[in-house]
Parts: sequence; structure tokens; C-alpha cells
Amino acid sequence: MHNKRSIVLVSGGLDSCLTAAVAQQQGYEMAFLHVNYGQRTELRELKAFKDIANHYKVSQQLVADISYLKAIGGSSLVDRNMPIEQHQQLPGTTIPSTYVPFRNTHLLAIATSWAETIQAGTIFIGAVEEDSSGYPDCRSDFFSTFNQLIDKGTRPETQITIKTPIITLRKKDIVLKAITLKAPLHLTWSCYEKSRKACGVCDSCMLRLRGFKEAGAEDPIPYVSVR
Amino acid sequence: MHNKRSIVLVSGGLDSCLTAAVAQQQGYEMAFLHVNYGQRTELRELKAFKDIANHYKVSQQLVADISYLKAIGGSSLVDRNMPIEQHQQLPGTTIPSTYVPFRNTHLLAIATSWAETIQAGTIFIGAVEEDSSGYPDCRSDFFSTFNQLIDKGTRPETQITIKTPIITLRKKDIVLKAITLKAPLHLTWSCYEKSRKACGVCDSCMLRLRGFKEAGAEDPIPYVSVR
Repeated sequence: MHNKRSIVLVSGGLDSCLTAAVAQQQGYEMAFLHVNYGQRTELRELKAFKDIANHYKVSQQLVADISYLKAIGGSSLVDRNMPIEQHQQLPGTTIPSTYVPFRNTHLLAIATSWAETIQAGTIFIGAVEEDSSGYPDCRSDFFSTFNQLIDKGTRPETQITIKTPIITLRKKDIVLKAITLKAPLHLTWSCYEKSRKACGVCDSCMLRLRGFKEAGAEDPIPYVSVR
Repeated sequence: MHNKRSIVLVSGGLDSCLTAAVAQQQGYEMAFLHVNYGQRTELRELKAFKDIANHYKVSQQLVADISYLKAIGGSSLVDRNMPIEQHQQLPGTTIPSTYVPFRNTHLLAIATSWAETIQAGTIFIGAVEEDSSGYPDCRSDFFSTFNQLIDKGTRPETQITIKTPIITLRKKDIVLKAITLKAPLHLTWSCYEKSRKACGVCDSCMLRLRGFKEAGAEDPIPYVSVR
């Protein structure tokens, strides 16, 4: 494995954009992985992914489609018959409808197969524990168990480590650190509902806007509503 | 969760056919999951899957496509530029080229997301440790680690257990048990190379044919070559 070759999972949102900035700052060669899973704002997220990849001059890009998750359903992110909660208070005590069952396992499985093939020794994922709406697959012990699974399920000589460099940060600190590292926040997209201007009221927009507000910074992307 | 509702991973081969027979014998309600990953004999395997599902009158069927594994490459099963070894002696000391990096993680991730959605408490997978060509993700401790991952990565109330009822069996015993349970072996497909008549010489055919020979039984599917 190449110790300084990495795969960065880039959804196109704030967190993954900062994660790429951290990987670059730490001197990693980066390959970018984006996963479509039939989410409502799939094309807008893909554009954000490509824009961020171009910004960091990342030539190795893989876009994987796991739209079978749409056939499985069970989440308002992919199932149009389920409403998305708005103005949800966080940290939540219940798991929100936007939870896609076991989603991060799919993302990390793809990243691991790719890493084993291109001999990348590190996978970066921008999971955030505290602000992650209570999704069970965003917690530290999920990722450490996945590291064990990699040890068990890959070639003996394969050494791949999952890194979650922003997992303990709050959105405020994510915004501040992204600004410090000159991450291209104007290229990111977070909204679960809209693709031209962000809705400003979905769970993801609320978290993002609160982060910018607490950081005392202006969010550079357009919104539908006046906040 | 429904204790007696299960998902059975059915590739269409001997092992998964027996696994379905075992699940049925143990009184489980079955939903069948098949995964296409761009393997050479994809359509033939899908036919076997549907034939076995019809045999067991399984109405809940899901076919998931993970052909991004083909884009990732790294295995002769999906990469036509890599030759498939023939007449490989088993148990092998090296991992064969047909190893698809981390493949079972993808299959189990899909099964788990579906299980959480339809509230199935059990996932059956027909992995076989001794005869599995040394694939690292076919061993018992891989599956027990995956069980831990399910605990960490799903809703607190979710209880899903992976069962590998034939993992300790050799191919001879698989054939014998399948015959005892009246599993529809004539509907199965194992060959990695051909789709009309099995090649008889690839790794998978060799294992299968040896199993029938040692069991003193006739393989009911057609082969290209005289053995």
C-alpha cells in the first residue's frame, strides 16, 4: 500500500469538502469517490463533487451508483412518499426519516474495494458525530468496527485505515476550519430538497446555516428564503 | 423485527441453493436477494436466481446492481483483461484472481439495508470457508465482525443476525445435504466462464464437479467437455 495515497469520499457537502482540504493539508495524494443513491438532489451533488475535484485538481475520480437503495426505500431522502422533517432540533433523541439504513457501510465498502485495487492505504470520510442527526452509522465506534472488518475481509497484505478527521467537530468549527484551510465552500451543496437555490429549512440546510451563523461567517451559496 | 422473516442471498449457485433449502427447512419466511456485479455470467446467474425463487415460491425478490465493481476492477471475474486460472488446486495458498476485493461486504450491506427496511431478523448467506478458494471475506470471523458492524450501524431497536449455515461444509457434503433436502440443483449455475453449457474447467466448475464426484452423484447441469 502507498501510505500517502488516499481515497476521499466526497458527497459535495460542507463536511466532505473540509475533509478533502484536511487530506490535502496532510500531504495525501487524493482520489475522489462520489456515490449516487437515488437521493433527491443527486445531480446537484454530483456537480458539487466535480467542482471540488477540479478545484483540487484530482484526476482519479469514481462515481458509483447504488440506486438499489431507492428500491429498498425506508428513508425520506430516497423515498418521495415520505416527508422530510423540517426545523428538527439537534442533537435529536430519535433517528430522523432522512436516515438511509446502513448507508455508510455501502460507501465504505466501495471505498475499500477501490482502495485495495489502487493500493491506497487511507480512506477519508467526513462523518460528524455530534451534528449527524443521530444516524447510527456516523459514530466513532462504527468506524472502528469497520476498520476491523477491513482487516478480516481483505488480502493479508492489505493495510487500509479509515480516517474521520472532523468527526468530533461541530458545524461552527467545521466552517471556521474550512475558512482557515481555504476550502472552496462556495462550490459545496448541502440541501436535501432543492437544486437551484437551497431551501434553507430542511434538516441539512438548518445545520449548515446554524454553523455559518455561529462562526460569524456568510454562507456563499444561494438560498430560496430570507433567513 | 420478525424472528422468522429472512433474507437469503441467492447467487444461483450450488451453495446459495442449499442455503435457501436450509432456511425453508428451518421454517423461515424468505425474501431473495440477488446481486449483479458485472460478472461474466451475470445473465445466466440471474436466470438461476429466478428459477430457484419460483421453485420456492418466493414473491419478495430484489435484484441489486453493483456494477461499479466492474469499474473498480481488480478481479478476473469482472475484468476481461485478466485470465481466470484453471485447474487450481484447493485449498489454495494464495488468493486467486477471481477474488473480487471485499465483495461480501457489498452483498451484506445491501442485505442489511433491506432487512432493516422490511424488518427481517435474519440474513442467510451460503458462504463456505474451506472450499472458498481462500477468499478472505468468506471466513467465520469476517461474518462475526459484520454482525458487530450491524449492531453499531443500525437503529438501536434493529436486531439482525447473519447466518452461515453451510460454512463448515465441504462441497461433497453440500451436494449430499442438497439432495437430502430436495434442493433444485438442476436449476443452479456455478460456471464463471460460460452460460449455455458449463465449461467444466474453471475454478468454480472444478469445485462443483469434485463435490458431485465425491458424493457419488450425477451433476444434473450440462457441461461442454467430457470429464
